[in-house]
Amino acid sequence: MNNSNNINDAFKGWSDKSYNRGRHLVERDITTLGWATPFYPDNSIPEHVLNATVSGLKNHGSSYLLPEGDLRLREAIASRLKKFNNLDVNSHKEILVTPGSNAGLYYAVKPFIKPGANDEVLIPDPSYTGNFLSVRLNGGIPVSVPLHASDGFQLDVGEFEKKLTPNTKMIILSNPNNPTTTVHKRENILSLCRLCVEKDLIMVVDHSFEDIIFDSRELLTIASVEEMWERTITVFSLSKGMGLSGYRIGYLVACEELMSIYHRFAVNILGPVNTAASYGAKAALEDYAFVDFYRKIFERRREVAFKMISQIPGVDCLFPESGYMLWVNISKLGTSDEIVKYLIDDARVIVNPGTEYGACGEGYIRIIYGAFKDDEKIYSILERIKESLKKLAFKKGII
Amino acid sequence: MNNSNNINDAFKGWSDKSYNRGRHLVERDITTLGWATPFYPDNSIPEHVLNATVSGLKNHGSSYLLPEGDLRLREAIASRLKKFNNLDVNSHKEILVTPGSNAGLYYAVKPFIKPGANDEVLIPDPSYTGNFLSVRLNGGIPVSVPLHASDGFQLDVGEFEKKLTPNTKMIILSNPNNPTTTVHKRENILSLCRLCVEKDLIMVVDHSFEDIIFDSRELLTIASVEEMWERTITVFSLSKGMGLSGYRIGYLVACEELMSIYHRFAVNILGPVNTAASYGAKAALEDYAFVDFYRKIFERRREVAFKMISQIPGVDCLFPESGYMLWVNISKLGTSDEIVKYLIDDARVIVNPGTEYGACGEGYIRIIYGAFKDDEKIYSILERIKESLKKLAFKKGII
Repeated sequence: MNNSNNINDAFKGWSDKSYNRGRHLVERDITTLGWATPFYPDNSIPEHVLNATVSGLKNHGSSYLLPEGDLRLREAIASRLKKFNNLDVNSHKEILVTPGSNAGLYYAVKPFIKPGANDEVLIPDPSYTGNFLSVRLNGGIPVSVPLHASDGFQLDVGEFEKKLTPNTKMIILSNPNNPTTTVHKRENILSLCRLCVEKDLIMVVDHSFEDIIFDSRELLTIASVEEMWERTITVFSLSKGMGLSGYRIGYLVACEELMSIYHRFAVNILGPVNTAASYGAKAALEDYAFVDFYRKIFERRREVAFKMISQIPGVDCLFPESGYMLWVNISKLGTSDEIVKYLIDDARVIVNPGTEYGACGEGYIRIIYGAFKDDEKIYSILERIKESLKKLAFKKGII
Repeated sequence: MNNSNNINDAFKGWSDKSYNRGRHLVERDITTLGWATPFYPDNSIPEHVLNATVSGLKNHGSSYLLPEGDLRLREAIASRLKKFNNLDVNSHKEILVTPGSNAGLYYAVKPFIKPGANDEVLIPDPSYTGNFLSVRLNGGIPVSVPLHASDGFQLDVGEFEKKLTPNTKMIILSNPNNPTTTVHKRENILSLCRLCVEKDLIMVVDHSFEDIIFDSRELLTIASVEEMWERTITVFSLSKGMGLSGYRIGYLVACEELMSIYHRFAVNILGPVNTAASYGAKAALEDYAFVDFYRKIFERRREVAFKMISQIPGVDCLFPESGYMLWVNISKLGTSDEIVKYLIDDARVIVNPGTEYGACGEGYIRIIYGAFKDDEKIYSILERIKESLKKLAFKKGII
């Protein structure tokens, strides 16, 4: 039997190249710098978070939580939103705890896409893979809005305006942006917000990397902008900044009207989050000084990693504004896929092809320098990448 | 601003009665017998599962797992599937670990529904709420297929045939069934399988209650029936039988062709499961003798609960075949909603209205006698229900 007649087109034909690359990594003993999670694969749970998790599990067991999340966790989230995001939200009615931000992003988009209605969603390109997939898997049409290296991949409202049609329904973006590390500037965000209000668009913003921002750059939370609260859904995560990716905890924040819809179906699509992890997440949100410590590590590594990769002839590297990754223009050496394959074979290291982040990512690779706890280990892997790419540049006559 | 123009119709107009009832429970200090999870709200984690969870967390940390789940957990699942479900599956290619069976059910259905194509899905009524919602939230049309009290709510292939149209795409059922506790008989399942093959239908089967079956009834795993493997997706859970609902671990099983599609998008919709819980789940699946112990408790309670509720004048109660619930015909006393409301006010107990499980559930309520660890506690709550309903029967002139 062949089931292909039964399968929805949105589920066919998507390249599974990088998926399969991921699967076979472990078997081939290749070092991965492709997973954006702090110190992966090393353990990174802070002591107070571990203790809260274990004691929650031992003392309170592991029954279901409410679909919208444990109230005490939601209160810790509300308190953090006030301090960190300039948002004053009702912990009963305006927060939904989600099993990570990926599921959160998919779910954030879902109620707004009318299948069969050709709803279009504007998405900066390059930006996180899930921004495109969340739309496609919900039956909408992702529309790529190019970002430009010339201005550090900042949002450009003019580019959004060019892509508007009567079917435009929503904008999805990540701030800070993954993979470019760009922290979007206030003036550009404000222009985009004006467009959003004028055209009655929904805004979904992924804040996964909000914890790791360098050089005191301002993070403007779009939901806090005038007239944006009631049309913005913000997606948060404890994975990227806090290193708690295996906890599977994130949260959505939106106005009561939108949240009443999210709350109602949460259990049927997302399920509640893991109960013990919820206790740990509360501890992490209440005392997140460890994130400053992480940021200092990544800031130190940023200098070394940037310098090392920039020295490769023909390679152009962006000085990171956030996170723990390099966004590297390798177009003079080959396509994204060629270079990724080359580095697996020659340097025995896996990095992400730029094309994972949209068509405009062609000619780029993403390198996670936040992997592993040991600085020297990550430097020696970066050195392997550097030597491999230098060899390739030499072969291509670039010196 | 009002966002209602932006919202997909499938997300509007669904009654949130029982959702809101759930929310306010805690505040009103009402005892809930509405959550189908063993011993809820008491802790029910077996010692060896707790130890494996905590030591996994402490020793291996909590980085991301592979989207399809940790291989060692999938191996434990494959071994259990062989022993328990008569299924010989490839742990690399035919299993997907999911964050519980609710998200698993939604996800199982997703690739087969073509939005806008009016795909119809046949669903026994009454059966689990999620069977209907998973279809609706994916853009399909749930078609209710009535089950009948007269034959203990067994599957009746004739009823399915009556509802077939050219748009029929899939059948979803739970075995054992929730809320009726029916364990579907081999001969009925085989007839339904023949229909499925003949009409090229996909079959989704939820096995959430497979662990708690009484009187040595046979559980026929549909995926093991000839010609069904390649068209069946089976949804499993560690919540209902093993009491690990807060772990958020379940699994999907399907042939490689279908699973390659599920695997590919798992991370974008479901996310991987909680890492520490995955270690605990492996321990639970490798040593599940505790489930026999749970079953004996529920079997003992079944006798008492059935007897108590059956004594109420005008009330008709099914002797449970599985699980830890009573499916109670209260139609002589009032509608499902009236009786639920009455019991909250008069007995200070919450139970589920039959209408949560489809239109055919009208006139029924579901009572979870598996709540709490202490037998006497549950008996005293059932006594409150009995006294309340007797009083109501008396008022209505039923003696």
